[in-house]
Amino acid sequence: MANSRYEYVRNRELPDPLLPNAYFVVRIDGRGFHKFSKHYDFAKPNDLNALNLLNAAATAVMRQLPDIVLGYGVSDEYSFLFRRRTELFDRRASKIVTTVVSTFTAAYTFLWPQYFPDRPLVAEMLPTFDGRAVVYCTKKEIRDYFSWRQVDCHINNLYNTTFHALMDKGGMSNTDAEARLSGTVAADKNEILFSQFGINYNNEPEIFKKGNVAFRDLKKLVEGEEQPENLKLEDMNLDKEFSSKNAKAKARRRIQKAEIVVQHVDIIQDYFWNERAPWILADE
Amino acid sequence: MANSRYEYVRNRELPDPLLPNAYFVVRIDGRGFHKFSKHYDFAKPNDLNALNLLNAAATAVMRQLPDIVLGYGVSDEYSFLFRRRTELFDRRASKIVTTVVSTFTAAYTFLWPQYFPDRPLVAEMLPTFDGRAVVYCTKKEIRDYFSWRQVDCHINNLYNTTFHALMDKGGMSNTDAEARLSGTVAADKNEILFSQFGINYNNEPEIFKKGNVAFRDLKKLVEGEEQPENLKLEDMNLDKEFSSKNAKAKARRRIQKAEIVVQHVDIIQDYFWNERAPWILADE
Amino acid sequence: MANSRYEYVRNRELPDPLLPNAYFVVRIDGRGFHKFSKHYDFAKPNDLNALNLLNAAATAVMRQLPDIVLGYGVSDEYSFLFRRRTELFDRRASKIVTTVVSTFTAAYTFLWPQYFPDRPLVAEMLPTFDGRAVVYCTKKEIRDYFSWRQVDCHINNLYNTTFHALMDKGGMSNTDAEARLSGTVAADKNEILFSQFGINYNNEPEIFKKGNVAFRDLKKLVEGEEQPENLKLEDMNLDKEFSSKNAKAKARRRIQKAEIVVQHVDIIQDYFWNERAPWILADE
Amino acid sequence: MANSRYEYVRNRELPDPLLPNAYFVVRIDGRGFHKFSKHYDFAKPNDLNALNLLNAAATAVMRQLPDIVLGYGVSDEYSFLFRRRTELFDRRASKIVTTVVSTFTAAYTFLWPQYFPDRPLVAEMLPTFDGRAVVYCTKKEIRDYFSWRQVDCHINNLYNTTFHALMDKGGMSNTDAEARLSGTVAADKNEILFSQFGINYNNEPEIFKKGNVAFRDLKKLVEGEEQPENLKLEDMNLDKEFSSKNAKAKARRRIQKAEIVVQHVDIIQDYFWNERAPWILADE
Repeated sequence: MANSRYEYVRNRELPDPLLPNAYFVVRIDGRGFHKFSKHYDFAKPNDLNALNLLNAAATAVMRQLPDIVLGYGVSDEYSFLFRRRTELFDRRASKIVTTVVSTFTAAYTFLWPQYFPDRPLVAEMLPTFDGRAVVYCTKKEIRDYFSWRQVDCHINNLYNTTFHALMDKGGMSNTDAEARLSGTVAADKNEILFSQFGINYNNEPEIFKKGNVAFRDLKKLVEGEEQPENLKLEDMNLDKEFSSKNAKAKARRRIQKAEIVVQHVDIIQDYFWNERAPWILADE
Repeated sequence: MANSRYEYVRNRELPDPLLPNAYFVVRIDGRGFHKFSKHYDFAKPNDLNALNLLNAAATAVMRQLPDIVLGYGVSDEYSFLFRRRTELFDRRASKIVTTVVSTFTAAYTFLWPQYFPDRPLVAEMLPTFDGRAVVYCTKKEIRDYFSWRQVDCHINNLYNTTFHALMDKGGMSNTDAEARLSGTVAADKNEILFSQFGINYNNEPEIFKKGNVAFRDLKKLVEGEEQPENLKLEDMNLDKEFSSKNAKAKARRRIQKAEIVVQHVDIIQDYFWNERAPWILADE
Repeated sequence: MANSRYEYVRNRELPDPLLPNAYFVVRIDGRGFHKFSKHYDFAKPNDLNALNLLNAAATAVMRQLPDIVLGYGVSDEYSFLFRRRTELFDRRASKIVTTVVSTFTAAYTFLWPQYFPDRPLVAEMLPTFDGRAVVYCTKKEIRDYFSWRQVDCHINNLYNTTFHALMDKGGMSNTDAEARLSGTVAADKNEILFSQFGINYNNEPEIFKKGNVAFRDLKKLVEGEEQPENLKLEDMNLDKEFSSKNAKAKARRRIQKAEIVVQHVDIIQDYFWNERAPWILADE
Repeated sequence: MANSRYEYVRNRELPDPLLPNAYFVVRIDGRGFHKFSKHYDFAKPNDLNALNLLNAAATAVMRQLPDIVLGYGVSDEYSFLFRRRTELFDRRASKIVTTVVSTFTAAYTFLWPQYFPDRPLVAEMLPTFDGRAVVYCTKKEIRDYFSWRQVDCHINNLYNTTFHALMDKGGMSNTDAEARLSGTVAADKNEILFSQFGINYNNEPEIFKKGNVAFRDLKKLVEGEEQPENLKLEDMNLDKEFSSKNAKAKARRRIQKAEIVVQHVDIIQDYFWNERAPWILADE
């Protein structure tokens, strides 16, 4: 057929596999969200509707891609951890990353009216996200990655909470508030909040302080359904060796049926990984 | 700051630059659009509303990213050609590809109600796209790439037009129509269309036969504005050397102001490249 | 300076870093060694001089590059394991691999006359090697990699030993010997060797059965020198955290002074890794 | 077979193809040649024996790999240009680069005694080289690449010639000579050479001023053999389309038989590319 003369260009596509048997995180970031959040008048320092929309979009991504075992989001970013042995799209990086980004974008755009019913999107200012995959070898690195994001969340939220208190309640200008906070450490900001504005930072909402941890809650499911006597939660990880193909298929069904929950909990300490969701990073 | 302990994970991100000074095409493809188009009841063999929406989304991408010099779309795919020397996002592949995919997805989702006012999107079936960048060294390869896509468009459209005529007008079953077309060449299909259904394939709409060619029409603009005596259209290519920084900045403004048009014209022959839009692949 | 006009081409070099914090193996293979070994009349099925030369070249590589913690060689190939956190050449793949290949080639060529004094190299048939780096995330994968190579050594040696016995002692032709072995399993070959030729494969030299395991013997060194009371051998791994910079520098000196030994021992079972050289893959 | 349990590690090797249909240069550099040249007492500022050995090693590489169409060497480096459409080793970068490096190293080591008969190599100081592949899209970039290297050769040689004249003939110390040349331009150095030492730089040997250009001289061959009436030299490029498979095979044989010459000529101007060796970068 005449096509063959040109079809050679198809072979110019270069392979881009992610390293086999390695963890990887796909992180997406809002593009120009400073401007975007201003345009749609997001509440400062945190907009609860915007966070709920972010979580709804992340949940849509995780429902589509069962090999994502954990999500963590804050502000206009979300990180998705894939299980180590996933063979999704033959581990082709661009296919995986664009699918995450597109699914997230479609859901965010589609769900917008539910979260901002009185502020319709306009064509000139649509929500868009870029993304990248980052490969990690060890559980320690994965733990450290999510600790990095959660510490970042805390630092930014403490700063922003104090900054906006100085302006909104203290009547300071933007510049003065910035100058006031320059060089301060966490303790200073806590002190400002408490002594000047009567705010105990510890009592701020967990969603702002801890960010958003999205995962399949196998506990609920496993409790709800009939659970084999000997099944341990930490074994419900598809990267592990199963006693049989059948056992693996069963686990897969169970995982896909599990509810995807979003919690605002600590993921730096061991408790989350060992007790709350021990199947996410199971021992090999 | 406490963060530093974890921040090392940031350095795990590997560089992914596209080869400097090379052309590249970002092609996006609808995910699961067979099912998607069925669900939303797209007309067969071609849905004009869906194509117009596709073009509207592509136009939104090209308005956002002025370094895209050409788009070509058909069915549920679109290819975007970037100019050779673009320094967009330092040529990082994942950043470029995800930005294209996300901008396309957001526009497609947002504009949907304008093109399908009576068929609202549902959360379980949102439009999503994957994407990839492919690098090409020469103008010949770029010409061949777009020829490949346009020949593909023709082959598929002739097949689909005949196939649906056999079913819709000829009353054949899906299986029978498939069997009837098995092993036929283009001339056979033309003959079936003409003799059985009185359809002259040449008179079919150009948008179905040729697909969709999106580009900035510098002619219109240049004619509309005051044009320097000595400016040649084939020089309006930002990859070329300009006489001065000022001349380049002028050209850039002009290009950004140009209307983005979508035409249904031949891009296999020379005419498009030499006469209609000679600035797209200018000589070096 | 006039140079600047052309110097831009320097920036066309693309980065090729190996994944940070991952193990990697550089494996080199003799190019055309079937022909090469014939030309220089290597003994069949194994040439002891050739193996000794191979080990000498590998030792030269490991002396040059202290971040190689293990080598394994057989026939005309050698695998070199780098410690996980090495920052050698900023982990640039091509720089690392070419340095290994070049150092190996130079040593092999230079040392040749010591091992084959009566068969001088000729210009038309020089020993050359290609190489590649392969990244692995886990200790298990590293163990499996070396098990793979040692099992391969065993399989090939059993086959070759039987094959050459059939020809050299049994008077079979090449083709007949091949046919005789077709479809046989290990037990069959052991049986042939024993019943037809009185050879007990278990009594064959370890160097042929197990291949060549090259590593720094810290035991010798540590025993020879004054050893801090509390130093454990499994802590002598530069990837581990040291109590101080000074402790690390001390360890580094000790490692560089250690004798590089080549042993013909099992590396599939745990003993080698846990008892003989516990510092090679220390716990993190 | 027992092997299968470990063999999965084989699939960890990631693909590393060089961009199809692009030129690429493999450049090798001597490792630690400052120390190396001191140890073996190379003449300063240029050692003719060392350059001749470098050229002999490069010639050995080009004889092995007929798809190298040009070499350029100076000091302890050599650049090898591969023809654009080569399918050598499926264009796997590491295989190509290590083969070049290993072949070069083996030849350099083996041929050493011919060029330095009274200065035998010692095991502690063997010649080694690293290497890398760099991809280029256009003939212009290839021309600029080699211009870059040849300008570099000129700059360094003028500096070194003057520097050593100041020391060897002018009796200056290393430090004083360095200070004397600090901030000088080419004209200054020419003047120093001429007025202080009666040296006309233009009369220096071409090999030092221009470096070493290695290529297959098809002229000699084509003249020597019976040449088809209509064969043009600029058509003797295997990347071009040939009238038939037979014509291509003939050209290939001719190219492989051609003598590899090393000349010390200008490769910045057009003459070399258009007149002396028009087949190296033929029009597409």
